[in-house]
Amino acid sequence: MAKGRIDFWFTTGSTYTFLSVMRLADIERAHGISFRWRPFHLLLILEEMKHRPFIDKPLKMQYMWRDIERRAKMYGIPAKLPAPYPLKHSVTANLVAIVGMREGWGADFVRAAYRRWFCQGEESGAEPNLSGSLRDIGQDPARVLALASSPDLNELMLAETDTAKKLGIFGSPTFVVGRELFWGDDRLEDALNWCKQSEVRH
Amino acid sequence: MAKGRIDFWFTTGSTYTFLSVMRLADIERAHGISFRWRPFHLLLILEEMKHRPFIDKPLKMQYMWRDIERRAKMYGIPAKLPAPYPLKHSVTANLVAIVGMREGWGADFVRAAYRRWFCQGEESGAEPNLSGSLRDIGQDPARVLALASSPDLNELMLAETDTAKKLGIFGSPTFVVGRELFWGDDRLEDALNWCKQSEVRH
Repeated sequence: MAKGRIDFWFTTGSTYTFLSVMRLADIERAHGISFRWRPFHLLLILEEMKHRPFIDKPLKMQYMWRDIERRAKMYGIPAKLPAPYPLKHSVTANLVAIVGMREGWGADFVRAAYRRWFCQGEESGAEPNLSGSLRDIGQDPARVLALASSPDLNELMLAETDTAKKLGIFGSPTFVVGRELFWGDDRLEDALNWCKQSEVRH
Repeated sequence: MAKGRIDFWFTTGSTYTFLSVMRLADIERAHGISFRWRPFHLLLILEEMKHRPFIDKPLKMQYMWRDIERRAKMYGIPAKLPAPYPLKHSVTANLVAIVGMREGWGADFVRAAYRRWFCQGEESGAEPNLSGSLRDIGQDPARVLALASSPDLNELMLAETDTAKKLGIFGSPTFVVGRELFWGDDRLEDALNWCKQSEVRH
C-alpha cells in the first residue's frame, strides 16, 4: 500500500543520521511511504570537497550534540550524549550495512549499531559494536564480517558512493525524491511532503 | 500579551535569515511571543573560526538556493533566486539595522533590504539597495547613513558581536531562549516550543 518511495542515502558515521534511522519505521507506517536504505561512504566525497564537518569547530560540535539531544527527546528517542566522534572505522559499518541491505537485515543492523553508539558509547564500525550489533539482530559476526571484507563488497560500496556523488549528494542523511534532494534529518518532512505532492501531480 | 521573549540574533548578510525575517511578524501574532531583533556582524566571528559558509563549496551553494526556494514557497514568501552572494558590504546593512533598532524601524528596514536583495537582485548593504530600502520605509538615507557611519555605531556593533560570541553564537539566524541556542530558520519552531515550555515551568 506504499504511496511513494524515498531513497534514504546515509553513512553510518553521521551523527544527525541517528535521528532519521530511529524515525523511519514509524514514518513508513504512518505515511504509507517506503524508504530504500542506501548506505554509502560519504567520507570519500567529503575528502574530495576538503570538508570535515564539526572537526576543528568545537562550538559547532558542542551545539550539534545539544541539538541532537533536544531533538531526540522531542521524538521520544533514548540517547546518552555526546557519543564518541568522529568515528575511525565507519567504512566497516557501511560495508556491513550494505551486506545487510542485500540480505534483508540492513536496517535492523544500522538501528542496533546506532543504539550501541548513541546509548552505550560503543564506537560504531569497531568492536565490540560490530559483533554486538550483529548478534543483537541474530546474525553471525564471523560470516558477515568475512562477506563485508571481500573485494566485491568494497566495489559495491564504491559504486554506491559514486552514484551518490553523481546525484549531487554531499551529506548524510540525504532523502531523494525523483530528482529532488533533501539534506538533513530536519528535511525529512519536506521530503515526505514532496513525495505526496508528486503522487498528486502524476 | 506576550507570553515570552526570544532574542533573534542575525546578520543581514545571511541567506537563510531571509526566511526568518519574513516569517517573524506572523509568528509573533500567532503565538503571542515577542522577538527582540539583534543585528550583529557574524563575519567577524566566522573569520575567527576560519569558516566561510558555502564558499568553495559549489554543490552546497546550489543546494542552499534550491532549499531556500522550496521553503520560501512552502511559507508563501515571494523570492527570485539565486540572489547575489556572498555580500561585500553586509557590515553597512548591519550598522543601518542597528540604527533602526534604536529608532524603532529596524525590522522594517531589514525586511525591505531582504525584499530588494531576494526579489530584485539588489545586493544588500550596497547602493541602490541601502538608500532604496530606507526610502521604502520612509527614512531619509542621508541622515541614517551618516549615523550608521559614526564611530559610536561601530562600537555598538562590535559590542553586540562580542555579546553574540560570548553566548556561543556561530551562525545566523540564532534564536536564544534563556540559555538555549537554536541555530537556523529550521529551528525556529523548536525555539518557540522551548519558549512555551519555559513559561509552563516557571
